[in-house]
Amino acid sequence: MAINLGFLLVISSLLLSLSSADWNILNQKKGKYGLQITLKNYCESWRMNVELHNIRDFEVVPEECVDYIGKYMTSTQYKVDSERTIDECTVYLSTSCGLKKDGADAWIFDIDDTLLSTVPYYKKNGYGGRKLNSTSLEEWMKQGKAPALEHSLKLFNQLKGLGVQIILVSSRKECLRSATIDNLVDVGYHGWKSLILRDENDENKDIQKYKADVRKQLANNGYRIWGILGYQWSSIEGLPTPKRSFKLPNPLYYVA
Amino acid sequence: MAINLGFLLVISSLLLSLSSADWNILNQKKGKYGLQITLKNYCESWRMNVELHNIRDFEVVPEECVDYIGKYMTSTQYKVDSERTIDECTVYLSTSCGLKKDGADAWIFDIDDTLLSTVPYYKKNGYGGRKLNSTSLEEWMKQGKAPALEHSLKLFNQLKGLGVQIILVSSRKECLRSATIDNLVDVGYHGWKSLILRDENDENKDIQKYKADVRKQLANNGYRIWGILGYQWSSIEGLPTPKRSFKLPNPLYYVA
Repeated sequence: MAINLGFLLVISSLLLSLSSADWNILNQKKGKYGLQITLKNYCESWRMNVELHNIRDFEVVPEECVDYIGKYMTSTQYKVDSERTIDECTVYLSTSCGLKKDGADAWIFDIDDTLLSTVPYYKKNGYGGRKLNSTSLEEWMKQGKAPALEHSLKLFNQLKGLGVQIILVSSRKECLRSATIDNLVDVGYHGWKSLILRDENDENKDIQKYKADVRKQLANNGYRIWGILGYQWSSIEGLPTPKRSFKLPNPLYYVA
Repeated sequence: MAINLGFLLVISSLLLSLSSADWNILNQKKGKYGLQITLKNYCESWRMNVELHNIRDFEVVPEECVDYIGKYMTSTQYKVDSERTIDECTVYLSTSCGLKKDGADAWIFDIDDTLLSTVPYYKKNGYGGRKLNSTSLEEWMKQGKAPALEHSLKLFNQLKGLGVQIILVSSRKECLRSATIDNLVDVGYHGWKSLILRDENDENKDIQKYKADVRKQLANNGYRIWGILGYQWSSIEGLPTPKRSFKLPNPLYYVA
């Protein structure tokens, strides 16, 4: 019995140690300042600082965090994080006074990773770990197979129900117009007021300037922009500032 | 042997299930949209959306997330997240050109949860789960026992070494000046250029307006503000915009 108990304890502790010996703990890194941190600590802090807009202009996800980011982007947590962002749009709309339903209330949506997910593309292309190949991404976009973010579709329809004009402002180029419309309609989006894509003049501007210029033009045209839902800080920052903005999580890539 | 093996397997699986039966899994919640999520998923999405500035104006941490937030604020992860924010300041400074060392280069720091930690106060006061009692918090501040955020102290000293003028802009009131100075000096901060606290006129403004007005005044006085390190979006947003801003994580409370 003593031997069996010993054997039991050895095997049990082996099993226990295996259960905790996942990639987080195995990949221990020595912190720069003497703090013992795991790879998970490191990559989570990278992701958090991307979302805080402290880390900017990254061209690739750090090599050692590609697995972590891939796991996050296909996790329940990413879905819950994104859904919470959209729930907050709904809370904001339900507590906002002043919607006039006169055709001038407007809401701006990004397209990629806001209405349509590019995660299937990045899943096949190294989860942000490789420098973006625009040609390859545009080829994928032309196929029009990007799935909807289901929660965004609900918000889209809710806004339509409130009589708010929906303006889609995307960094996609004009040559993708037809494929983009087909894709949007296929997955359930219809009834937007305007779809603004980048023409040749816009291609020389950075995306933040392009999107801010579009907001300026919309305001000049008499629209009251109640909110923006976007996936990059460049969709939200700059002047004119909308009444509110909402940023979805996106640690896969950076658009300046 | 067969019985022993069966016993072994039962005990092992019991131990394994205990090892995973933590509060995250035990506290399953039914997602609003049919998604089965854990309490950890829920609270993590709350925290992420606070940091994304999608959730605003919260008076307390949601009751069900107080344990989660308490754990985070005392975790290695919080420390690593904050250190990464400050590392990014260092990267920015090392790659910035144009520091003139003429006495007009400046950097703005918040004080609370930027240079000095209020976590010991919140630890004794329900980790943001109770509505803020300003009198009690100010009593605690008057004791001058807030510890330094070690990494912030390193950045502070690095900036001094670069000849950058350090301006402390805090939402603390003027009556706390002497206690604040004592506390800062006690934990190692010295050599700042200016310590700006809220006087009676400022108390009627919201914090964002107060801090933006201070930046405007500093710019009018000829300072080139290279960056801000703060703990709230209200420390960073509004005009004039600094060249760069860095936000530390802080899900404990919200300052508008």
